[in-house]
Amino acid sequence: MIIDCHGHYTTAPEPHNVWRETQKANFKAGGDVDPAYPDISDDEIRETIEKNQMRLLKERGADMTVFSPRASTMAHHVGNEDVSKAWTRRCNDLIKRVVGLFPETFVGVCQLPQSPGIDIAHSIGELERCVNELGFIGCNLNPDPSGGKWNGPPLTDKAWYPFYEKMVELDVPAMVHVSGSCNPNFHATGAHYINADTTAFMQFIEADLFKDFPDLRFIIPHGGGAVPYHWGRYRGLADMLKKPNLRDHVMKNVYFDTCVYHQPGIDLLFRVIDTKNILFGSEMIGAVRGIDPETGNYFDDTKRYVDALAISAEDKAMVFEGNARRVYPRLDAILKAQGR
Amino acid sequence: MIIDCHGHYTTAPEPHNVWRETQKANFKAGGDVDPAYPDISDDEIRETIEKNQMRLLKERGADMTVFSPRASTMAHHVGNEDVSKAWTRRCNDLIKRVVGLFPETFVGVCQLPQSPGIDIAHSIGELERCVNELGFIGCNLNPDPSGGKWNGPPLTDKAWYPFYEKMVELDVPAMVHVSGSCNPNFHATGAHYINADTTAFMQFIEADLFKDFPDLRFIIPHGGGAVPYHWGRYRGLADMLKKPNLRDHVMKNVYFDTCVYHQPGIDLLFRVIDTKNILFGSEMIGAVRGIDPETGNYFDDTKRYVDALAISAEDKAMVFEGNARRVYPRLDAILKAQGR
Repeated sequence: MIIDCHGHYTTAPEPHNVWRETQKANFKAGGDVDPAYPDISDDEIRETIEKNQMRLLKERGADMTVFSPRASTMAHHVGNEDVSKAWTRRCNDLIKRVVGLFPETFVGVCQLPQSPGIDIAHSIGELERCVNELGFIGCNLNPDPSGGKWNGPPLTDKAWYPFYEKMVELDVPAMVHVSGSCNPNFHATGAHYINADTTAFMQFIEADLFKDFPDLRFIIPHGGGAVPYHWGRYRGLADMLKKPNLRDHVMKNVYFDTCVYHQPGIDLLFRVIDTKNILFGSEMIGAVRGIDPETGNYFDDTKRYVDALAISAEDKAMVFEGNARRVYPRLDAILKAQGR
Repeated sequence: MIIDCHGHYTTAPEPHNVWRETQKANFKAGGDVDPAYPDISDDEIRETIEKNQMRLLKERGADMTVFSPRASTMAHHVGNEDVSKAWTRRCNDLIKRVVGLFPETFVGVCQLPQSPGIDIAHSIGELERCVNELGFIGCNLNPDPSGGKWNGPPLTDKAWYPFYEKMVELDVPAMVHVSGSCNPNFHATGAHYINADTTAFMQFIEADLFKDFPDLRFIIPHGGGAVPYHWGRYRGLADMLKKPNLRDHVMKNVYFDTCVYHQPGIDLLFRVIDTKNILFGSEMIGAVRGIDPETGNYFDDTKRYVDALAISAEDKAMVFEGNARRVYPRLDAILKAQGR
């Protein structure tokens, strides 16, 4: 089967977005930051999914998506901790409804109630709720909840450790994923996302996080940012920093997805990164929604690029399914319970 | 001939670095930020060059380097405008001495006296001095003089326009190059450099800078950051932003160097980027100084990767020489005056 490890609910029903606007307005006015949530019918949710992600999944020949709230609107820098907490809960609950309606097509990954300057330990409760009560299989961890100011500690700082302990205990991985940018220097999907991926990987090289947490697992999306293209640089920097080679130092714990929107990029990814570290992903419907005039296909139809690779059927099965089941053990358990 | 468009004086004589430490200490103590500069003999300079850059140039079979002050120690965020101004002048004068000693091997590119929050127009005087009096052919422009806080305007903001007007008037290009990082999230050469490259390119996509300055030219180093690897994403984003295709919108004015430290990366660069937009560069002696255990050669011996490409002799000549002479007209003039 073909599992897309990277999809966000970018087509959520409008009342959900209206609730968020109300919340932000209330915050500014000193009002209730967790106002009553609108009635959204199952049919409304079905429609947003069937017309969009589900239609494209079928058209492209994939089976399911690891689904999380829209990344660009997590916006951890907006409001304060209470705002982030209430919004996050609403977003995760909505994902749960999608999964409930289409349990064979979607599996949930949660947004976290991060907030700039707030201890990440405050996010543990929501992670536990989503995993233990909602049946989610992982989380999106924002390495820069400030939205482009980058004024918090690196991911390898001990401040993050309580959260990592919980991830290991629950046996869930995190996708490293920033949100929107409030820094005019950084276009969200064109610079901030890719920079964050590159930044996180280099942080992992500099430190010894995976000595402390040998079972901790991260997916770095968007094909690992700039990393595969500069793989020689990163191998050389690890060497200069007197670290073990990247295979042992980082790549037992870090995975890249295939959200790279052209064939040459995917070819490079597979040329330099071990297949066991690559998970199929498209971020559909996401950052780049158009059709590539050079190919006539959607830029983000990344399955085509993987299909075109001259790799073995076993390797393709790893990328499309096996690696995801290994990196997300709770996904594997759900699929097994479904007889898949 | 073979021109390396990207080399920094990372091996400057120790008294030069001591002067800088004195300057910084004086600044802290409220003292003279432009103290007397040490006597550095021609022999001292010769030794730092002959043993290092010159030796490696010869070993690797290149002819000359477009040479600028060490990027990581520009450190525009240290001190204040006067500190940056005095340090920059010392650094550029030292480059001029190298060029004077080895006029057939080095040609100068200047550091700029940028400073966070200070109008870039204040850098025009030093650019003019370096070009008109010292014979330099370009400059390194720091898109983030804060050193990783990214709290200034994007490169496309009108605040930069007076400087661009002078660049066009002098017919010199700029390499977009950040300096060291004072942000613990960003490793300088492993994250901040690459992120800045990616960020600058996306800024150029978002705006219409080259409509306002059709003759303005930038070199984005380190192979263009993440851009070639994500070329599909950038083509798709330009389309979503209703911009012309990248060839017309950005690539008449932007060039990438070959500072990508492994063969697969260079292969990708040449597969997706027009040869006319690629300048040979190594950043030698720079960020990555070791030998790649997989090849037995220096990571930054990028000439080997270009040599290994299956491209025509004409294309190689463009990358090694022709493009540099076109992008830096003052280099072409110097070479012609030397009968080359």
